[in-house]
Amino acid sequence: MSGIFYGVGVGPGDPDLLTLKAIKTIEKADVIIAPITEKNKESLALSIVRSYICDHVNIVWQVFPMTNNMNEQTEAWHNNKTEIIGYLEKGKQVAFLTLGDPMMYSTYIYVYNLLKDSGFTIKTIPGITSFCDIASKTGFPLVEGKEILTVVPATNDSEFLEQTLDTGDNLVLMKVYKNFDDVMKKLKKSGHLKRAVMVSNSGMPDEEIYYNLDEIKNKKLKYLTTIIARREKN
Amino acid sequence: MSGIFYGVGVGPGDPDLLTLKAIKTIEKADVIIAPITEKNKESLALSIVRSYICDHVNIVWQVFPMTNNMNEQTEAWHNNKTEIIGYLEKGKQVAFLTLGDPMMYSTYIYVYNLLKDSGFTIKTIPGITSFCDIASKTGFPLVEGKEILTVVPATNDSEFLEQTLDTGDNLVLMKVYKNFDDVMKKLKKSGHLKRAVMVSNSGMPDEEIYYNLDEIKNKKLKYLTTIIARREKN
Repeated sequence: MSGIFYGVGVGPGDPDLLTLKAIKTIEKADVIIAPITEKNKESLALSIVRSYICDHVNIVWQVFPMTNNMNEQTEAWHNNKTEIIGYLEKGKQVAFLTLGDPMMYSTYIYVYNLLKDSGFTIKTIPGITSFCDIASKTGFPLVEGKEILTVVPATNDSEFLEQTLDTGDNLVLMKVYKNFDDVMKKLKKSGHLKRAVMVSNSGMPDEEIYYNLDEIKNKKLKYLTTIIARREKN
Repeated sequence: MSGIFYGVGVGPGDPDLLTLKAIKTIEKADVIIAPITEKNKESLALSIVRSYICDHVNIVWQVFPMTNNMNEQTEAWHNNKTEIIGYLEKGKQVAFLTLGDPMMYSTYIYVYNLLKDSGFTIKTIPGITSFCDIASKTGFPLVEGKEILTVVPATNDSEFLEQTLDTGDNLVLMKVYKNFDDVMKKLKKSGHLKRAVMVSNSGMPDEEIYYNLDEIKNKKLKYLTTIIARREKN
């Protein structure tokens, strides 16, 4: 049997938000790859699927360094790619885990691009995005009728971010942990702060939900923190 | 036991893309509500979950008319709301099915707004969006790094749509069935046409995938047709 590479979206955190397709893929996998960073050796994605992993499975932790040193990064990625191809050449079913959806802001996209011309079959399984999860759990509709949804990482530079907030009525702000105070100022200025919710680690045991964003000051936020917001209509 | 109202996202079409949470909710429901239009009496959402519906369940088809006659619409919605509250008052678990994700462009949002102050518990279960499904199956990453994703219904007026296409690099165009030729012209002008895919009825038996959009002329498209596109970088 030929090796197949699967990119498996495991959703935002709650194992009940796994799709059947994700579960079936994990149950039949020979090798499960859990991406980790150098700082964080725990794989959240792995913990979400843990109860579906069979005894015989080979779990492989691959480090994807969060570094600006391109040589270091290129070398790590090349090694990870070579390791994956090694398993595929042995005919293994390899499942690469990815939080949320695999085709949105994920390490999997880079791995996919490295492997797509390798000749092996690649199958990608979509996952529930964090912003859909947050919208459902807080009762906050993302977009209705002809409205436009703008999804933007808050790690963008300040001026560009301000411009985006000014033009978008319905917003999803990803990764707000870094520039939180600045993001709050901008949301206030652009008229989004009155109808906004923020969730950290959605669906995980340490989930935190904030409804009154303008009351939060100098807060140390978790990495997986997302704001959804809608501009007040005049 | 008190009645609970569930909004259940059933994903884009493939029953294997249901989440465990959606399946568990459908299995325990007393009443399942399948929204239909006057034109289309078949409920696609119902066909997706069909194999998980228990024998004793009461399936209710509710018509949500697609009309500009506000009186007709208001009356239909009021009747649907009254019917749902009737079940909830009897202590029933009521599951309202919704294609894709419940908080994005859905009839469920209107029903949710009608019921949110009724005093009954409402739980919403997110679903896989059509655009995440399309991105995965076509190997087309939606957004990477600091990129912005813009999700826009192609039913918006022509000038506004053109403006949105001009400013967004990474696009999801929903409901392109109506103004397809105009949308194609605009995508060509804005530099998105070379890297674009279009899918009709994603995950359904009659799914159609188009990779070369500029070769399609005068095509009659299905209602559930979505384009994802990325502007060529110079």
